[in-house]
Amino acid sequence: MSLAEALFAPRVVALVGASGDPAKNSARPLRFLRKHGYAGRIVPINASRGEVLGERAFSSLAEAPGAIDHAFIMTPGDSVERAIEECGARGVPVATIFSDGFADAGAEGAARQARLVERARALGVRVLGPNSMGLVDVPGRVALTVNAVLEMDVLPVGTTSFVSHSGTMLGAVLSRGAARGLGFAKLVSVGNEADLGTGELVELLAGDPGTRVILLFLETIRDGAKLAAAARKAHAAGKPVVAYKLGRSRLGAALARSHTGALAGEDAALDAYFRDCGIVRVDQLETLIEIAPLVAGRAPPNLARAARVAVVTTTGGGAASVVDRLGVSGIETIAPDSKSPVIDLTMKATAEQYTAALDDVLASPDCDGVLAVVGSSAQFHPQLAVEPIVRSKKNAKPLAAFLTPHAERSLALLAAREVAAFRTPESCADALSAFFAWRSPRPGSAAAPVEWPRDLPRRGRLDEAQALVLFASLGIPVAEHAIAQPPGYAHGIPYPVAAKALSAELLHKTEAAAVCLGIADRAEFDRWIRAMLERVPSARAVMVQKMELGLAEAIVGYRDDPVVGPIVLVGAGGTLAEIYKDFALRLAPVGEDEAAAMIEKVKGLAIVRGYRNLPRGDVGALAKAVAAVSRLALVPGLPVAEAEINPVIVKDKGVVAVDALVVMKEQDFSPPH
Amino acid sequence: MSLAEALFAPRVVALVGASGDPAKNSARPLRFLRKHGYAGRIVPINASRGEVLGERAFSSLAEAPGAIDHAFIMTPGDSVERAIEECGARGVPVATIFSDGFADAGAEGAARQARLVERARALGVRVLGPNSMGLVDVPGRVALTVNAVLEMDVLPVGTTSFVSHSGTMLGAVLSRGAARGLGFAKLVSVGNEADLGTGELVELLAGDPGTRVILLFLETIRDGAKLAAAARKAHAAGKPVVAYKLGRSRLGAALARSHTGALAGEDAALDAYFRDCGIVRVDQLETLIEIAPLVAGRAPPNLARAARVAVVTTTGGGAASVVDRLGVSGIETIAPDSKSPVIDLTMKATAEQYTAALDDVLASPDCDGVLAVVGSSAQFHPQLAVEPIVRSKKNAKPLAAFLTPHAERSLALLAAREVAAFRTPESCADALSAFFAWRSPRPGSAAAPVEWPRDLPRRGRLDEAQALVLFASLGIPVAEHAIAQPPGYAHGIPYPVAAKALSAELLHKTEAAAVCLGIADRAEFDRWIRAMLERVPSARAVMVQKMELGLAEAIVGYRDDPVVGPIVLVGAGGTLAEIYKDFALRLAPVGEDEAAAMIEKVKGLAIVRGYRNLPRGDVGALAKAVAAVSRLALVPGLPVAEAEINPVIVKDKGVVAVDALVVMKEQDFSPPH
Repeated sequence: MSLAEALFAPRVVALVGASGDPAKNSARPLRFLRKHGYAGRIVPINASRGEVLGERAFSSLAEAPGAIDHAFIMTPGDSVERAIEECGARGVPVATIFSDGFADAGAEGAARQARLVERARALGVRVLGPNSMGLVDVPGRVALTVNAVLEMDVLPVGTTSFVSHSGTMLGAVLSRGAARGLGFAKLVSVGNEADLGTGELVELLAGDPGTRVILLFLETIRDGAKLAAAARKAHAAGKPVVAYKLGRSRLGAALARSHTGALAGEDAALDAYFRDCGIVRVDQLETLIEIAPLVAGRAPPNLARAARVAVVTTTGGGAASVVDRLGVSGIETIAPDSKSPVIDLTMKATAEQYTAALDDVLASPDCDGVLAVVGSSAQFHPQLAVEPIVRSKKNAKPLAAFLTPHAERSLALLAAREVAAFRTPESCADALSAFFAWRSPRPGSAAAPVEWPRDLPRRGRLDEAQALVLFASLGIPVAEHAIAQPPGYAHGIPYPVAAKALSAELLHKTEAAAVCLGIADRAEFDRWIRAMLERVPSARAVMVQKMELGLAEAIVGYRDDPVVGPIVLVGAGGTLAEIYKDFALRLAPVGEDEAAAMIEKVKGLAIVRGYRNLPRGDVGALAKAVAAVSRLALVPGLPVAEAEINPVIVKDKGVVAVDALVVMKEQDFSPPH
Repeated sequence: MSLAEALFAPRVVALVGASGDPAKNSARPLRFLRKHGYAGRIVPINASRGEVLGERAFSSLAEAPGAIDHAFIMTPGDSVERAIEECGARGVPVATIFSDGFADAGAEGAARQARLVERARALGVRVLGPNSMGLVDVPGRVALTVNAVLEMDVLPVGTTSFVSHSGTMLGAVLSRGAARGLGFAKLVSVGNEADLGTGELVELLAGDPGTRVILLFLETIRDGAKLAAAARKAHAAGKPVVAYKLGRSRLGAALARSHTGALAGEDAALDAYFRDCGIVRVDQLETLIEIAPLVAGRAPPNLARAARVAVVTTTGGGAASVVDRLGVSGIETIAPDSKSPVIDLTMKATAEQYTAALDDVLASPDCDGVLAVVGSSAQFHPQLAVEPIVRSKKNAKPLAAFLTPHAERSLALLAAREVAAFRTPESCADALSAFFAWRSPRPGSAAAPVEWPRDLPRRGRLDEAQALVLFASLGIPVAEHAIAQPPGYAHGIPYPVAAKALSAELLHKTEAAAVCLGIADRAEFDRWIRAMLERVPSARAVMVQKMELGLAEAIVGYRDDPVVGPIVLVGAGGTLAEIYKDFALRLAPVGEDEAAAMIEKVKGLAIVRGYRNLPRGDVGALAKAVAAVSRLALVPGLPVAEAEINPVIVKDKGVVAVDALVVMKEQDFSPPH
């Protein structure tokens, strides 16, 4: 029996800790399995009763006769380990653990969880949870969960599957979907992901013939590489993966050492991750439920320009409430052969006119997708506009419908015909934006490994000069520089120069006033040295650089993110990237084309892209530098934790790196502050 | 009979153009009036039938016997004028015009509308519309509308009224509300607002004993001053006004002459307008329907610090989906006496525990509001958490509930007890954010009128020197300057200086390279003059200024906005305000405290507020300058269209205006480009 079978289609389920009191949570799995027509055998395990809700019960797994495919464990935290031992002894291949008090409950719980998983692995028992609410296979009639929503009488069957960090969301998705005819295939609450994680489940679903679309509700990402690989498999299998991810407002970067680290907070890195894995990211919770028909059976549009959507509506205000938001996402609204961007048939459309307008734009080469909006008629007169949508040319083009009134029957009508229909203008616009931002997974880099410069250490922090050597080795022009050593501080750089104190204790040199720009001559240099030594007694030498002036400054950074892996960032220079969060971020490495596309996204770099007739900077050279920095992801063993050039000076011809920072993963000093 | 009575409670309604075919739109008002129990008399007017749907019909208003309080006109556009004439002749006080083809149909229609309204005024007939879908008074059983949603059998009665530019939205609000027990009082589709506008309707509703909350769906604002006055009346009457406004993505500033004009696009100005009028602005459509119980009977919180919300939940993921968004809006989540910011009772709460936790935070002085989240139990086990919410300490504190599953009965249960409950995490967070951003209307300025400097013209564009005189007259320090006239271009400003060509044809001088900074001596000055004259032959003189250096640059602007009236703006200097939309905007005039609060909102000015230990700038002096510029709103007759200082140099002590632009309303030259 495969893992997928034991998990989703067990022939025999043991319910460890099943209660005989039907009002209790731990009685629910038995009630729900029966209620929803489970065809297999149910074996309640209850230490104190020989019978549970009419089912013969056993005092332990050891005593239960016959093979058991899946154990659902609900006993208190400290007895879970015993249950797993018994699973091992009985050869139960999968255990779902509802019990909490593990990694969800602080360090001690996390240690208990680690021990539990280690033991389960040794015993050959795969674990879902702990702290999992269980799973549901709707077509297979397996309702192995404690989620109260399973009290509902009918679960609509569909081909959308769902993996969730929140058990509650199983109920939200199932019940909200059921209310409007959106059905599901498999739903899994992954809990703490001690063993079976989101990535492995997505992989199982990618291979599941009953699943066409995979939805994810994510509170975090614990297995970034696995999930990325699974998303690629799902893509290869033609199964779109859509994610809703919590944590947009969290900073989570308090401990970052570089600007890059601070900027590349969890959320921005995850955005890049989802994009590069080919995962569609939605912003609104209900979009996750509603988007499935929009993506099912479709490939990523991979648009290189702004998307164009044609709008057919029976309500101007209703259409505008969606179109407004599309505009904010940069989606253009067009209407072929019409003066207005919206085909507005308010109060005068017959069904024939609506059908004709819709089929027209669905067939038009001028738009990438169609938005159909229906006003008050959607509730009581579906024949006017809802039915024309249902009858429209299927699959000619992505089609999203928004109905302004409360109209659940019309929503169900559309769902039955696999037309994506939305309850709110916001989720409708969110879905279209997410759809058109959807890209195929980036192919893995075929680039050769990058050699680490022989003279540079592979641990500790590189000093400023070493950092410049590293960036130069990647092919990035660096400012002419020299190290001026005490006591004489001699150097051969022609004036004017910039000077910076070198000290292991300074990270943000501008803050410490250890930098001086535009030193005109030797006398001024000597005066600065004296003043600087008073303020920065830890300075062990001085980096002297040729003064470089350009048209703009940029920051280019690299980070091996603990969640998503190597990333590269380009942002507006100076303090702008930080103050305005003005940067673009991708998984590393990137090629020059992708780097150029990143630069396009940085608003502050408009000043070198021809803004207000200002002189243009060498954006191509900046793209080369971004691609070069991203190649740190090709250094075997990934020794670099964070690296950045801040600033890269962008000139009319070329760029030059003037300030560099590299932090290695293996430290040999304690961090400042 | 008052206007409000004729409009909302007519004893006799004439339906002009009522159809005898029940399937037609123009049969709806008669059907709906009857269906929903209208107690008055219905008089169909139909040129070709003596009977309409069983009601005696008349061929014209002239022939209908008895007094008529309200005529609902559905005949084609060109016959509307005749109907209005007949209304006038019969003394019908109010006509609602459903017919379209007026201002909604281009310039010709707009002219027809203007003629119609002029005639109606002369005849003493008030007009709702044209292009209005009509109105509904739910408690009064007046369903005088063509909106198809009135096919519904029962309209729940409530105390929330609704004024909408979109007729369809009447249906959306009514039907969505009805599905979950949210009732309404009066609903009005204002159409083209040829006569009766949103402002006047809000004023009527402010005086309506049956209305506690006023909701607005706005596509535009046609009567800014009236609506502002009405909002103040509503506030004085203790009736919150909540607006959803379309048009966030529109630029609408293409014709602006100054940066200020370009930045103060419709939406930013409207944000300031709503705020200063005490109108709550919501972002999501469904929030408009759901927010009423949250604001009903409450006064604006007028918080001067970040709002603090306590969270009680039975689902971690469900709570996080709201809390995440609250964080983005700057709302803090706190839990008194607890380590976690959320009181999470997942899978273990009894009703007693939920009640206790809820009452605890509702009574706590540590939070400004409470968010109650309920997971899967909300659908089938309302006794667990929904009923405790219903029983919670009413009105102790703003309370918002979010239910994760489909749970319409629970939503209705909460609605019946006037607890604000939300279907999506996004609208829940939106409502809380809007609530805590809500402020009392700004009191009208009691400041004395500001005198226009005697030497300055009141029309045309002021030149640079005149503009500086104007700003100096308002009390703003301006850079020492002189006008150097041809042929000698003599001046008395000590070097180094900045020089700018003065020409009526240049607006953005930096673009035209007509500016030179840091001219070191007379020889350099002369060289620049020669070069400049070649490139700017239209230059008639040169403005010479003392070079001013400071810690940062800001833009301070004023505009008499055509929709909302005088506004003042402060933004980051240089190109930052424009590139990053980094500015704060208020209705003018503002005091120094308000100006200081505006400056706090400008991210780019962080660099003079102590960011990264950079030296602090004189933010107080900048606030004084902002308040001074805003006093242009106190010049009698408001002669100034747009005015701005860009930049104001912010120093460690004081500020100084170095570049100024003033555009008067009455032009005497044609604009450039």
